[in-house]
Amino acid sequence: MHTLTEIARRFALELRGSGDGVVRGVATLAAAGPDHIAFLANPAYRRQLAATGAAAVVLAARDADEARGTVLISANPYADFARIAALFEPHRAPAPGVHPGTVVADDAEIDASASIGPHCCIGARVRIGAGAEIGPGCIIGDDCEVGPATRLVARVTLVTRVRLGARVLVHPGAVLGADGFGLAFDGGAWLKVPQLGGVLVGDDCEIGANSTIDRGAIEDTVLEEDVRLDNQIQIGHNVRIGAHTAIAGCAAIAGSTRVGRHCLIGGGAGIIGHLEIADRVTVGAMSLVTHDLREPGEYVSGTPIQPKREWRRNAARFGQLDLLARRVRKLLGEVPDE
Amino acid sequence: MHTLTEIARRFALELRGSGDGVVRGVATLAAAGPDHIAFLANPAYRRQLAATGAAAVVLAARDADEARGTVLISANPYADFARIAALFEPHRAPAPGVHPGTVVADDAEIDASASIGPHCCIGARVRIGAGAEIGPGCIIGDDCEVGPATRLVARVTLVTRVRLGARVLVHPGAVLGADGFGLAFDGGAWLKVPQLGGVLVGDDCEIGANSTIDRGAIEDTVLEEDVRLDNQIQIGHNVRIGAHTAIAGCAAIAGSTRVGRHCLIGGGAGIIGHLEIADRVTVGAMSLVTHDLREPGEYVSGTPIQPKREWRRNAARFGQLDLLARRVRKLLGEVPDE
Amino acid sequence: MHTLTEIARRFALELRGSGDGVVRGVATLAAAGPDHIAFLANPAYRRQLAATGAAAVVLAARDADEARGTVLISANPYADFARIAALFEPHRAPAPGVHPGTVVADDAEIDASASIGPHCCIGARVRIGAGAEIGPGCIIGDDCEVGPATRLVARVTLVTRVRLGARVLVHPGAVLGADGFGLAFDGGAWLKVPQLGGVLVGDDCEIGANSTIDRGAIEDTVLEEDVRLDNQIQIGHNVRIGAHTAIAGCAAIAGSTRVGRHCLIGGGAGIIGHLEIADRVTVGAMSLVTHDLREPGEYVSGTPIQPKREWRRNAARFGQLDLLARRVRKLLGEVPDE
Repeated sequence: MHTLTEIARRFALELRGSGDGVVRGVATLAAAGPDHIAFLANPAYRRQLAATGAAAVVLAARDADEARGTVLISANPYADFARIAALFEPHRAPAPGVHPGTVVADDAEIDASASIGPHCCIGARVRIGAGAEIGPGCIIGDDCEVGPATRLVARVTLVTRVRLGARVLVHPGAVLGADGFGLAFDGGAWLKVPQLGGVLVGDDCEIGANSTIDRGAIEDTVLEEDVRLDNQIQIGHNVRIGAHTAIAGCAAIAGSTRVGRHCLIGGGAGIIGHLEIADRVTVGAMSLVTHDLREPGEYVSGTPIQPKREWRRNAARFGQLDLLARRVRKLLGEVPDE
Repeated sequence: MHTLTEIARRFALELRGSGDGVVRGVATLAAAGPDHIAFLANPAYRRQLAATGAAAVVLAARDADEARGTVLISANPYADFARIAALFEPHRAPAPGVHPGTVVADDAEIDASASIGPHCCIGARVRIGAGAEIGPGCIIGDDCEVGPATRLVARVTLVTRVRLGARVLVHPGAVLGADGFGLAFDGGAWLKVPQLGGVLVGDDCEIGANSTIDRGAIEDTVLEEDVRLDNQIQIGHNVRIGAHTAIAGCAAIAGSTRVGRHCLIGGGAGIIGHLEIADRVTVGAMSLVTHDLREPGEYVSGTPIQPKREWRRNAARFGQLDLLARRVRKLLGEVPDE
Repeated sequence: MHTLTEIARRFALELRGSGDGVVRGVATLAAAGPDHIAFLANPAYRRQLAATGAAAVVLAARDADEARGTVLISANPYADFARIAALFEPHRAPAPGVHPGTVVADDAEIDASASIGPHCCIGARVRIGAGAEIGPGCIIGDDCEVGPATRLVARVTLVTRVRLGARVLVHPGAVLGADGFGLAFDGGAWLKVPQLGGVLVGDDCEIGANSTIDRGAIEDTVLEEDVRLDNQIQIGHNVRIGAHTAIAGCAAIAGSTRVGRHCLIGGGAGIIGHLEIADRVTVGAMSLVTHDLREPGEYVSGTPIQPKREWRRNAARFGQLDLLARRVRKLLGEVPDE
C-alpha cells in the first residue's frame, strides 16, 4: 500500500494531479479501479486513457494531455511501470538452509544464506553462492556453480559443468549442460562424440521454462550478461550469445553459431550452425537464418499467411518460379530460347 | 472381456452379424485377431476391410457392405471406437491420500478423496479438489487450485496462481504459470516486468507433455473449457483461447493474442502477439499468422517441399520476385520504364 | 594421461612426428596447448593447422602436409577424435543399488548391477537391466522396461509401456510414453481416444533433453536401433523411425508417419502425419514435408532470409504469384484473355 506521492518520489516521476490516492496494485487501463495504477506505453491503447478508472497512469509527457485523472510522467513508462509493479510482487524468498528432503554431496559448498528446497540433488564439487534460491526438485550435477542471488525456480536441471553468474533466473523444466548433439558416422552407425565442455551463463540472464542449453563439445557454450531467453528455446553446443540479446519462445540456434550483442530473435526463428550474426540484428518470427548476417538490421524469411485456396495457387507457382522467370527473360529478349 | 452384443447395447450401436464374439481388446484392421474390435473412420483404410481378422468392425453405414464379418454401425465410428477402447484402458486411479514422501504446506486444503504421489511439493493456500490425482514429482506452487477429477500425470509444475477446472488432464513436463516474457529496455539493459497475473484453465482441457503456459502480466492467461493442447506448445502471457479449440504439437501463441472457439491450429504453427483470431479458424502446419484473421476458414503460409536442386533455383527467384513482377508490368505496358 | 604413441597404437592410427608427447585432454586447433590433442575434419578450419599449439592433430592423410607438428593419420578423423576424447570423459557410473530416497513397486525387477538415484519412482512390473543407470528424479511408470547399460541421465519420465533397448541414452526432461494426441469430435466437444499402445526404442538410440515421444494409440511408436534425436523433438503416436536416422533439435513428426533408415532430418523441420519417407532422405532445417518422399535425396521448403525491406516487397508479390504467372502466359499467347 503506497500513496501516489510516495511512488512519484521513489521513482523520480513527475506527478500531475492529486498525490493522495492509495495504490494497492497495478491493472490495465481498461480494468483499473481507484486503488490501481495503470500505464500507457503501446499507442494502440491510448484510446483507453480517457475512460480508465485508475488512481493514476504512468505515461510519457506527450500523452499526458489526453488523460483526465492523475498522471505520473515518465521518460520510459513501461520501465517505470515495471519498477512500480515490483512493489506488488508477492514472491518472498524462502528461509535460508537446506531442506531435509534434499541430497547433497559431501564436498558441495553451499553458502549459509542460500536456500535449497525439497527433493533436490546437489552433486560433487558444486558451489552455491550467497542468497541463491534453489526451488524444489532441482538437480545440480557435478562441478556446477550457482552465483549469488541466482534463482532456480523449480525442477531445473544443471547437468554438469554449468556455471551461472549472479542474479540469473531459471524457470522450471530448463535443462542446462546436457550433451551437445555430436555424432560421427563410422562403420555404418553413429559414434557419440564426447561433450567435454560446459555452459557459462553471465550475470542477469534469464532462461525460460523448458528451454535447453547444451554444454560445449570441447569449449564452453556461453551466454554473456543480460541475455534473456523465453520458453522452449534450444541453444546448441558451443553457441555464444552476446550481452543484452533477447530471444522469443521456441527459437533455436544450432551449434557453434555466434550471435551478437543487442540482438532480437523472433519466436520460432532458427539459426543454423557455424554462423556469425552481427550486433543489433533482428530476426523475424519463424525466419530461418542460413548464412552470416554481418550488418545490423531486420531480417525475415517465409511467405505471408493467406486463405488456403489462394495460398495453394500461389505455392504451386512458387514450385515453378525459375521457369516463370526464364520465360519473362525470354519475352524481354534477354536470353536465347532454350 | 465383453461380448459384441453387450458392446452394441452399451453404446447404442446397430449390430449386423453374430453378437457372440468375445472381445478382449482393440486393434487396427490390419492386425486385429478374433478377439479384437477394429474400426474404420479414415477412408484410406477401407481396402483393409475385406481381409481383417477382427471380431467386429465399428464403421459408418455406408461402409457396411464392404465388410465380410460382423459390423457395428455408428454415426461417428471414431468416437464410438474411442468409447469402446476406454473399456480396455488399464489406468487405475491410485488410492486416495498423500504419499509420505511429499511436502505439503500447512494451509493447503486437500480433499480426502484426492491422491498425491511421492516427491511432490504442495505450496501455501493450495486447494485440491475431490478425486484429483497428482502423480509423482509434481510441484504445485502457492495459491494454485486443482479442480475435481483433474489429473496431473507426473512431474507437472504449476508455478503460482494457476487454477485448473474439473477433469483437466496435464501430461508430464508441462509448466503452467511461469513468468511471462515481459522486459523493458532501460538504461542499456533489460528490466524485468513483474508477472502478477495467473493462469486459468477451464474444465475438460488437456495439456500435452512439456508444454508451457505462462501466467499473465497483470490479468490472467485463459484457456476456456475443452481446449486441447498437444505436446511442446507454448502459450504466452495473457493469451486467451476459446472453448473446443485444439492445437497440435510445437505450436506457439505469443502474448495477448486471442484465439477463437473451435479453432484448429496445426503443428508447429505460430501466431504473433496482440492478434485476434476468429472462431472456427484453421491454421496450417508451420504457418505463421502475422495479422488478425477475422473470418472462419483455413489459412496457410510457406512454400511446398521440393528436391533441393529445384528449390534452390526457385528460392533464388523469390529473392528477386518484386523485380520480376515489375518487369512483367512493363511488358504489359502498365508502368513507365524505370 | 596418455602418450601419443599409446594413443596411435590404441586406435590404429599412423603417427607422423614425435610420439613422446603426453596428452592430458583435447582442444580445438585454435586453443590447443602442448598437452592437448586436436583434430581437423571440417575444411573450414584447415587454415588453423599451421599455428596450432597442439601436441598432435588427428587428420586425413590429404591434410597432413599442411601441419607443422605431430599428426595422427585417420581415415575418419572426426570419429577417431571422438574415440580419443572419450578417454577424457569424466563421467563415472555411480555404484550399483537403489538410493534410499526412491520409491519402488514391490513387483519391479531391478538387476543388482543397476543403479537407481534419489527421488525416483519405479512402477509396477518394471524391469531394469544389468548395468542400467537411472539418474535422480526419474519416473518409470507401470510396465516399462529399461535395457542393459541404458542410462537415463536425470529427471526422465517413462509414462507407461515404454521399452528401451540396450545402451540407450536419454537426457533430462525427456518424456516417453505420454498419451498420443487422439481426439474424436462428438456432440459439440472433444472425446479423448484412449492411447493403448506403447513406445519401443531400439538399442543404441539417444533421445535429447525435453524431447517427447508419445505412445501409440493401438500399436507401438517405434524407434529402430541407433536412432539419434537431439533436444526438444516431438514424435507423435504410432510413428516409426528407421535405424541410423538422426534428427536435429526441435523437429516434429506427426502421428503414424514412417521415416526410413539413414535419414537426416534438419532442425525445426516438420513432417505431417500418415506419410512415408524413404531411406536416405535428408530434410532441410525448418522445412515442412506434406507428402510422401519416395526417393532418397535432399528436400527443402521455405524462402531465403532477406533484409526486411526487400523481403516485404517480394512476399507481397508471392501473395499474387498466380496472377503474375497467368499474365506471363497471356503475354506468351498461351492462354486466352481471362
